[in-house]
Amino acid sequence: MAAPLGEFGRIARFLAPLAEGCPGALGLKDDGAVLSPPDGWEIAATKDMLVEGVHFLPGDAPRDLARKMLRVNLSDLASMGARPWVYLLSFALPKRCDDDWLSAFADGLAMDQQEFAFSLAGGDSVSTPGPIVMDAVLLGLVEQGRALRRTGAQAGEDLWLSGTLGDGALGLLAAQGGFPTLDYVHQEALAARYRLPRPRIALGRRLIGLATAAMDVSDGLAADAAKLAAASGLALDIDTPTIPLSDAVAEAVAQDAELFERVLTGGDDYELLFTAPVEKRSEIKMLAQELDMPLARIGRALAGDSVRLLDKDGAPLSLARTGWVHG
Amino acid sequence: MAAPLGEFGRIARFLAPLAEGCPGALGLKDDGAVLSPPDGWEIAATKDMLVEGVHFLPGDAPRDLARKMLRVNLSDLASMGARPWVYLLSFALPKRCDDDWLSAFADGLAMDQQEFAFSLAGGDSVSTPGPIVMDAVLLGLVEQGRALRRTGAQAGEDLWLSGTLGDGALGLLAAQGGFPTLDYVHQEALAARYRLPRPRIALGRRLIGLATAAMDVSDGLAADAAKLAAASGLALDIDTPTIPLSDAVAEAVAQDAELFERVLTGGDDYELLFTAPVEKRSEIKMLAQELDMPLARIGRALAGDSVRLLDKDGAPLSLARTGWVHG
Repeated sequence: MAAPLGEFGRIARFLAPLAEGCPGALGLKDDGAVLSPPDGWEIAATKDMLVEGVHFLPGDAPRDLARKMLRVNLSDLASMGARPWVYLLSFALPKRCDDDWLSAFADGLAMDQQEFAFSLAGGDSVSTPGPIVMDAVLLGLVEQGRALRRTGAQAGEDLWLSGTLGDGALGLLAAQGGFPTLDYVHQEALAARYRLPRPRIALGRRLIGLATAAMDVSDGLAADAAKLAAASGLALDIDTPTIPLSDAVAEAVAQDAELFERVLTGGDDYELLFTAPVEKRSEIKMLAQELDMPLARIGRALAGDSVRLLDKDGAPLSLARTGWVHG
Repeated sequence: MAAPLGEFGRIARFLAPLAEGCPGALGLKDDGAVLSPPDGWEIAATKDMLVEGVHFLPGDAPRDLARKMLRVNLSDLASMGARPWVYLLSFALPKRCDDDWLSAFADGLAMDQQEFAFSLAGGDSVSTPGPIVMDAVLLGLVEQGRALRRTGAQAGEDLWLSGTLGDGALGLLAAQGGFPTLDYVHQEALAARYRLPRPRIALGRRLIGLATAAMDVSDGLAADAAKLAAASGLALDIDTPTIPLSDAVAEAVAQDAELFERVLTGGDDYELLFTAPVEKRSEIKMLAQELDMPLARIGRALAGDSVRLLDKDGAPLSLARTGWVHG
């Protein structure tokens, strides 16, 4: 066993290599980073904090935690149409997170930096007597004045959703062993989606000029649709039978129909919800093919201020809860 | 008693007003903030995480915590010569931090936003089963290419320190009741300095063009001087009798000479340590008068790679510990 590294040794060994792509990070050796966005671009900034036992499970692999923390932030950038640029990272670690833990955590960071093409620029590492807490600020770049926002939807437009819904929320149940009757492959698929969200960066970039409003679905479709409706000052009707489900979620709901409410209200989807004019339908369908990703038209914007989740007969569902409170 | 506000109610009530000075914050209602530095300026970015029981005392007033969190970051900006611009804020709060707690916390943020002229741009609020954890990313602005760094010191230059040393470290002891024999006014003064650092923003701005290297002293003079020496690739000799002490620290050290080691190695000073060419001495002395702040010449840079703390006879002190580990 090697002697444990001190704080500065840990930063130099595990984190400084992650900052090599960012000259302004100054090798993580200065009081901060020095950053300049390229001409013509502005910065999209997002910050998310994750707490062990609240946003992830005690015992989740450090490599997955690192990637989840980056990905919940990447998803926010995706919803703004930005591309990742740099991030600053803090974590409070209990003593049990030793050098091996940090090494695996840094591996996870490196994997996603490579996949999404961005660099570490700075941060902080502290000790804690409590649970693991991680926090990342991600700075993305978006063409000046072009960032997607939640405010631009117009009555008469279509409401679209990327990917499939409910995998994150049912994935949490699966990771906790909540689906003993479900096919093992499906259990694994759901748990993997909970542990490792798929931020829709490529889609977000392509939605600039197509979508009139966009956000990522992280607190549940019902609650997040209400935020988009409020921000744009209109109502949304959602045809729930048109919402795409993965095979695993479809099978789980077939076994227990009550789970469909959790599909609609559970969090951790990290899909993009967006509005677009009706005349963009064919362009969006071509985009779905090009990106090889489901883009489903799940409803429409109309005058008013409510969000209605409609069943196959067009009647509003009444939900026991509208939002998933995990923070 | 009013009913407690939910997460979104708390953000709208207590935090959204703090973002009114930042149009790019989008009212804290979108997925992130959209930010553009003015032409000719670049961004200095710093991130610090504070944990209850590690970086502040359980029971410290929420108004003070808010300001301390901003100020440890402001101090990093000061050391880079940047002026504050915007910040993103996250906190993980246990249930006991109710709406009154958050209201007082927001008051503290507002006080320092006004004092240092910057705005909230975004962040995250989550719950935790553990201690309070706060994290801020502060973005400052500095003229393109002019940021102060740790790397520019040259052999033969003077080493300077702002303010007085040891108030933070002895202030922690005072706040814990460790100085029963010390004059009550001095105890209070020390505890106040621990709870509320004074970031040297105005000084940092004026050091651009004067200082060749700069950093803030947060982990103790001995450890931080070693970082500056390593970054600039030289040695530093510090004449410890020339280090300015406040009346309170001088009195505490007079009562117990062993405390002087803690003055040299304790953290939480948040003063600026910088190097400058010998020919800048009179200019720096005039600056001290203008800013009404002690700027003391405490040593010099020379070839080599060590930091020596010298006593009144020029003999090196040997310390039991060189750095204050609080994180």
